Amino acid sequence: MEIFVAGKFIKTSTELKVTNPYNGQLVATTFLAGQPELEMAISAAQVARKSMHNLPSFRRYEILMLIRNRLAERREEFGRLLMLESGKPIRYALGEIDRSIQTFTVAAEESKRLPKEYLSLDWTPAGEKKEGLVKYFPVGIVAGIAPFNFPLNLAVHKIAPAIAAGCPIILKPSSVTPLSTLLLAQIISETGLPEGSVSILPMDRTTGNSLVTDPRIALLSFTGSPEVGWKMKAGAGKKKVVLELGGNAGVIVSRSADIGLALSKCLVGAFSYSGQVCIHTQRIYIHQEIFPEFSNRFADLVKGIKTGDPASAETEFSSMIDEANALRVENWVNEALDGGARLVCGGKREGTMYSPTVLTNTNASMNVCSSEVFGPVVTLEQFKDFESAVEQMNNTRFGLQAGVFTNDIQEMNRAFEALEVGGVIINDVPTFRVDHMPYGGIKDSGQGREGVKYAMMDMLEPRILVKGT
Amino acid sequence: MEIFVAGKFIKTSTELKVTNPYNGQLVATTFLAGQPELEMAISAAQVARKSMHNLPSFRRYEILMLIRNRLAERREEFGRLLMLESGKPIRYALGEIDRSIQTFTVAAEESKRLPKEYLSLDWTPAGEKKEGLVKYFPVGIVAGIAPFNFPLNLAVHKIAPAIAAGCPIILKPSSVTPLSTLLLAQIISETGLPEGSVSILPMDRTTGNSLVTDPRIALLSFTGSPEVGWKMKAGAGKKKVVLELGGNAGVIVSRSADIGLALSKCLVGAFSYSGQVCIHTQRIYIHQEIFPEFSNRFADLVKGIKTGDPASAETEFSSMIDEANALRVENWVNEALDGGARLVCGGKREGTMYSPTVLTNTNASMNVCSSEVFGPVVTLEQFKDFESAVEQMNNTRFGLQAGVFTNDIQEMNRAFEALEVGGVIINDVPTFRVDHMPYGGIKDSGQGREGVKYAMMDMLEPRILVKGT
Amino acid sequence: MEIFVAGKFIKTSTELKVTNPYNGQLVATTFLAGQPELEMAISAAQVARKSMHNLPSFRRYEILMLIRNRLAERREEFGRLLMLESGKPIRYALGEIDRSIQTFTVAAEESKRLPKEYLSLDWTPAGEKKEGLVKYFPVGIVAGIAPFNFPLNLAVHKIAPAIAAGCPIILKPSSVTPLSTLLLAQIISETGLPEGSVSILPMDRTTGNSLVTDPRIALLSFTGSPEVGWKMKAGAGKKKVVLELGGNAGVIVSRSADIGLALSKCLVGAFSYSGQVCIHTQRIYIHQEIFPEFSNRFADLVKGIKTGDPASAETEFSSMIDEANALRVENWVNEALDGGARLVCGGKREGTMYSPTVLTNTNASMNVCSSEVFGPVVTLEQFKDFESAVEQMNNTRFGLQAGVFTNDIQEMNRAFEALEVGGVIINDVPTFRVDHMPYGGIKDSGQGREGVKYAMMDMLEPRILVKGT
Amino acid sequence: MEIFVAGKFIKTSTELKVTNPYNGQLVATTFLAGQPELEMAISAAQVARKSMHNLPSFRRYEILMLIRNRLAERREEFGRLLMLESGKPIRYALGEIDRSIQTFTVAAEESKRLPKEYLSLDWTPAGEKKEGLVKYFPVGIVAGIAPFNFPLNLAVHKIAPAIAAGCPIILKPSSVTPLSTLLLAQIISETGLPEGSVSILPMDRTTGNSLVTDPRIALLSFTGSPEVGWKMKAGAGKKKVVLELGGNAGVIVSRSADIGLALSKCLVGAFSYSGQVCIHTQRIYIHQEIFPEFSNRFADLVKGIKTGDPASAETEFSSMIDEANALRVENWVNEALDGGARLVCGGKREGTMYSPTVLTNTNASMNVCSSEVFGPVVTLEQFKDFESAVEQMNNTRFGLQAGVFTNDIQEMNRAFEALEVGGVIINDVPTFRVDHMPYGGIKDSGQGREGVKYAMMDMLEPRILVKGT
Repeated sequence: MEIFVAGKFIKTSTELKVTNPYNGQLVATTFLAGQPELEMAISAAQVARKSMHNLPSFRRYEILMLIRNRLAERREEFGRLLMLESGKPIRYALGEIDRSIQTFTVAAEESKRLPKEYLSLDWTPAGEKKEGLVKYFPVGIVAGIAPFNFPLNLAVHKIAPAIAAGCPIILKPSSVTPLSTLLLAQIISETGLPEGSVSILPMDRTTGNSLVTDPRIALLSFTGSPEVGWKMKAGAGKKKVVLELGGNAGVIVSRSADIGLALSKCLVGAFSYSGQVCIHTQRIYIHQEIFPEFSNRFADLVKGIKTGDPASAETEFSSMIDEANALRVENWVNEALDGGARLVCGGKREGTMYSPTVLTNTNASMNVCSSEVFGPVVTLEQFKDFESAVEQMNNTRFGLQAGVFTNDIQEMNRAFEALEVGGVIINDVPTFRVDHMPYGGIKDSGQGREGVKYAMMDMLEPRILVKGT
Repeated sequence: MEIFVAGKFIKTSTELKVTNPYNGQLVATTFLAGQPELEMAISAAQVARKSMHNLPSFRRYEILMLIRNRLAERREEFGRLLMLESGKPIRYALGEIDRSIQTFTVAAEESKRLPKEYLSLDWTPAGEKKEGLVKYFPVGIVAGIAPFNFPLNLAVHKIAPAIAAGCPIILKPSSVTPLSTLLLAQIISETGLPEGSVSILPMDRTTGNSLVTDPRIALLSFTGSPEVGWKMKAGAGKKKVVLELGGNAGVIVSRSADIGLALSKCLVGAFSYSGQVCIHTQRIYIHQEIFPEFSNRFADLVKGIKTGDPASAETEFSSMIDEANALRVENWVNEALDGGARLVCGGKREGTMYSPTVLTNTNASMNVCSSEVFGPVVTLEQFKDFESAVEQMNNTRFGLQAGVFTNDIQEMNRAFEALEVGGVIINDVPTFRVDHMPYGGIKDSGQGREGVKYAMMDMLEPRILVKGT
Repeated sequence: MEIFVAGKFIKTSTELKVTNPYNGQLVATTFLAGQPELEMAISAAQVARKSMHNLPSFRRYEILMLIRNRLAERREEFGRLLMLESGKPIRYALGEIDRSIQTFTVAAEESKRLPKEYLSLDWTPAGEKKEGLVKYFPVGIVAGIAPFNFPLNLAVHKIAPAIAAGCPIILKPSSVTPLSTLLLAQIISETGLPEGSVSILPMDRTTGNSLVTDPRIALLSFTGSPEVGWKMKAGAGKKKVVLELGGNAGVIVSRSADIGLALSKCLVGAFSYSGQVCIHTQRIYIHQEIFPEFSNRFADLVKGIKTGDPASAETEFSSMIDEANALRVENWVNEALDGGARLVCGGKREGTMYSPTVLTNTNASMNVCSSEVFGPVVTLEQFKDFESAVEQMNNTRFGLQAGVFTNDIQEMNRAFEALEVGGVIINDVPTFRVDHMPYGGIKDSGQGREGVKYAMMDMLEPRILVKGT
Repeated sequence: MEIFVAGKFIKTSTELKVTNPYNGQLVATTFLAGQPELEMAISAAQVARKSMHNLPSFRRYEILMLIRNRLAERREEFGRLLMLESGKPIRYALGEIDRSIQTFTVAAEESKRLPKEYLSLDWTPAGEKKEGLVKYFPVGIVAGIAPFNFPLNLAVHKIAPAIAAGCPIILKPSSVTPLSTLLLAQIISETGLPEGSVSILPMDRTTGNSLVTDPRIALLSFTGSPEVGWKMKAGAGKKKVVLELGGNAGVIVSRSADIGLALSKCLVGAFSYSGQVCIHTQRIYIHQEIFPEFSNRFADLVKGIKTGDPASAETEFSSMIDEANALRVENWVNEALDGGARLVCGGKREGTMYSPTVLTNTNASMNVCSSEVFGPVVTLEQFKDFESAVEQMNNTRFGLQAGVFTNDIQEMNRAFEALEVGGVIINDVPTFRVDHMPYGGIKDSGQGREGVKYAMMDMLEPRILVKGT
């Protein structure tokens, strides 16, 4: 597949082979962009700025709905390609396509609803007979960097808002999963968007770093690991930076919880796409009275997970993105066991496949607790009272989302006030996300929010017109 | 005290004597306005429309804050006069002054924040290069009719928003409690508001009816009884009508409730100002498992209520507004007892004083359940499950507010979805109100909302400017 | 065509023949609903209330988008039918279908965006540790009454918001143009909306009056003539009433205006669909310095209007809805001429066809100025300074929309502040409307606003949940 | 005067003498904070975080209004001290106190109106029966760095929002004008705010740099020079950074402008406080047809400016903040003259006093055009058509505010769309600001917005609660 530079599909001198993590087979060959291709993309984006800004609302809406409709028509094709490049079970791959369709739908609608304010200014005599209009203008060129784990939808969470906001975007997909985004480029190329509005460029690290440093880029929107993200912020010069990083999301299961609900939700939260999810359910804190029941039933459920080829409709669980990551997870689990943790189930690796793993008796300093495990590992620990559960949840440098299973109003209120995260999910896992909700972390989990409208806000800057009345 | 007509204090030919309901002593003599005084008020209001509309925000704010500050300085004087005219215990009278201070504060702030919208119109080619500004303009003259039970604050809930919105207002206080509002007129007269902006006119019924029928009045805002209110709507011609009527507000005490909290809140909700409150707690539904405990403890608390002269700081409970109302309540209670209800405590009348009364074994067709009792009577009934409690609550033609004592998330959610009222108060009585919240009923309890900003919305009408970009 | 009662297409005992106003040929035969059919519709609507309220946002969206898409697919068919029943030139008939498609699109989007508020309540100690959630609930059954002039889109302006808001609706189309709305019913019947959600019932006057008086209907939304509308308000009992009435919309052409633009816009504003438009451009006030040029050029343009069969793509102007109306217009013009007005062009009638007519030297008391002419007549008068133009514009009991052609900031500002209307359109005619903008009149032109979101607001009532924090 | 560290007034080992720039006389002696005092402030702020967050709205409001009221009572005292430390004419010094009073008033009101969102989440089946509440939580400790030119109000623009948002703040005033802010600390210390909520610390540069680097500080809000500001952003680590920098604000005077208005406004915009204003009117572009008249009349007005002791009520113009700055301005003017510019008037220096200076025939590369002159210098240049005026305005790396004198709607619209700034002021100078409007620059003029509510937004971070319905 060719890469997409400013409206054209081209080859470069550097081939990039994309393989299926499950079986190592070649999925497709594409290309890495170097400085020349990036330069073409940036130059074209500069030219496209004005025409994108001048698109009336109905044109932005039409373009985004056209993409949405084409994507819906080709759902199966996109799902299959995404499954192949990522090793994500087909059921989840199709779910991701559905979410991308929704992300474009919301962006289409929000493109007509850019924020606008109309203010009285006569609060003091200095403002008498004056009033203000605030309109939001596109910031300029956006650079988006997307991760491998939701190769399409996390790219779409940058592309769709950029089109809606009127900003040209240069999107770097992950080098291991660039294909579904490049397939999307085909659809985008047929919409009549000004050339230069969107470029999709897999890149090597050096070229990618130019996205951080080039002063012509106004906003860097990065989704990926905390370490890389915070370094980018430091090197970004005058540009704005949005960081959607990861964490070690936790869940509280209170005594008043619906245990059956908690079990089934936690199972998915912990193991969908092998835990390679920013809001993967990594830590579960269970009230001591229900801990034995919960942990036993959970272990049983984990053992029943259907593992296998991601291409199969039955498969619930498959391999990790590559062996390096599987090895890292293996090491962290072994470290935890050496440190006194107890293995409830799992803990086995075969190539890129790491089995669904449940640990208990862990402590907060172990990597499986304190770092972003980004693999199929979850810890179960008990607590005595709700307040101590809150403390354990907060005892980390991350703060993305948290889940709380409870039927108690006081506990719900307390969780909202006290959990140091971007989102508190009642009676669901932290892994819960719908695409129009504000989503993002605090503490080391990031800065800024995505969720179409919220992502658009960072791509816009206000300008006030002060006028007479 | 003289009445306030378009900036001037005048006498009329008809004296109105105001007496203390507790001891029948004369509090003060004032006057009833007739057609000539109403005509003066309306004519002056017509002239004032333009200058009120042209007041810049900072002037509206200054005027409203000046009223607020003067009222705060004279808090004790206002509280005492309000207590004397209404028979309301001084603790509650002072509380009402505090609320009026707050109502003016909020109005001052909202006068700078009149709603404004700024819209993109280019959602279709027909709107290309066009956008819209929506500004809200005063509707014109407002007629306000206030009841006796919160003689100051319910008048202020019309006066303060009218000033904030830029509408002249003619306010008819209750003929039995006009004094505190007339005292407020003194403060208003010193603010520099254009003459004709505010008139405070006690009226006989015929003159009062002109407020309903006069076509020069743009909005009629009535707080009072359902019967009178709905009749006014029918006769109001082209004018807008806001109705803040009463009801038979109910409470659910769920099994998961904090009983102590429920008891203490219900005590105040049921008996403050002898139940002469639109959102008086009239019906309490208690889960059958806690019913015996609740009803026993409640009866004990009722017996401990300190009854006496409203002028005393200790007094919690005093007389009703007049003997006619006390007699009406006595009759309704006796009817209920004849129909099979059981008297838990109370049920005695002495002149205007009707003792705090608790009934049980009532049914939905008795006046003490189905009508607005507007007196110190409350019914206690039990329920089996939450859904049947909701049904009993809804089994009435009224729908003002409802209280629910619970610690269960599902019950809270269900109450919000299913209770047919304007406000659902969790872990407090339906009698709860703060002055900036949207307040008002559905079904026969009224139409429209008060709460400063919400009252202002009815006093304003939108105008869109469609302009080029 | 059968009428649509609570999900079923039925015949009744009373036939209704619909003819083409241009040539008197029968278009189709349909039926008038009587009390039995209305009763079926209301009963089914009562049942549908709960299931409509419970539809999740995505279902409302899907249903409305499905209608939108089917309408878009059948655009030509709908346009032709609308042309035949109304005599509206096909170019305008197709434009109306396009607007209905847009109205459904906007309603689909707004169905996901029902207003919601989240309030802090701790502005005084009384509200400490409490906060409020305000959600909007459907008011109940809506009765919609639509006029003949935009038979589809003005019905859709009631149907689409009702579905979006979750209210069952009974829609009475005009008896002379019911067909396109009944064709829409076919599409609606295939969406899976609960039966009883929508009924489309042509009615005789007696049955129609039940829509006004039946207490089971919560909201009456009427678009039509001022006389009928205000009478309905008086007889509507406790229900809410929205009135979208007409007027005698005016235009100012200032000295600074772009005359060419003003001429071409006024031509369409005055004569499209023979002036049978609520915001028909009826009065044009031109600065005296440009009056001769404007009136000469305008007369030339009027003479060039292509008149003929509405079915022809070239036709710009065709017959009126019936001869009675053509006769009425003829009489009003003749009265004006008798009273001293001068005929610039037009003034001829042939059956239902009344020629595009321009008058000057009129005065404000003539029917062609003061009443809603609802026909192809426009007056041209001159003014000396902008302020006097504003006065002439306002010298009427109506206040729907106004147009102002100017390039002067002061005049634009003044027009916005001073013109007593619901909408001031800069550099376009008052006839301008896009379907998502707030639209409606003040003074005798009505009460309430349509424009999807604004129409929805009247179909919803707020409920606050007060909860702890 | 002692400095204010976490609720206590203390001395340090390093004295700081503050002198009157006009006459060099000592105004007062205060102290520089070093690392120990900063450490005390940060530690106390960490403790104060929780109690500040827990303050109910009414307490925040009371505290901010108490500060506002005390400041209003001591207006003259504050004005005089500010005049002495800054050399700002007393009329402008008092104006600044009035603005600070207003800034606290607005903050008090906004403290009750923290943003809150209530969202439906059921836009797809994944969100069925779920909804979201978004509340904004304080980010943590704020470090504020204020400049010398508005020593009180620009500090208040950080302090007041911080209190309103619930964030502890450490404020570093300019070392040359710390006194009025330290006087404010006296008032703050009497409000009952938790100790550690506010510290006012003049600092040497090394200590000040810790505000940038210390990871315990969550937000750095800097108002000052572009060079310093952008360097801070690079060194700020994970913290958020708001930059309110300067520029070279320009004005367009169109042919349709009211020349008298433009002249009088430009005079103040160019020379108030010797041009030491972030939005100082530095460049004036005049239509060529009115250029001769404008420049002649402007020169006459400049010559009439009353210069002298800032303590005198008559004085309109006085010295610059120090001789170094006066020398810098002198050099830049001389460079311009050497480069071909023509001196219209001014151009003389005596110590810290630099006379009001008007230049013409400049070009965009001269420092007086391209750099922030921050002194009493303005350039007058002519333009041929509006579009070229826009280009000249935009031909700079800065983008703070712009003024446009015009009475032409097209020009107003074009200015809003095309001028690359944070604010476009119609018929006033770019120097216009009221304290509640969104204020801030784009391009090199900064990042983020102040204006109380807007400043608060940066001090808050959203958290969503996802709950059932």
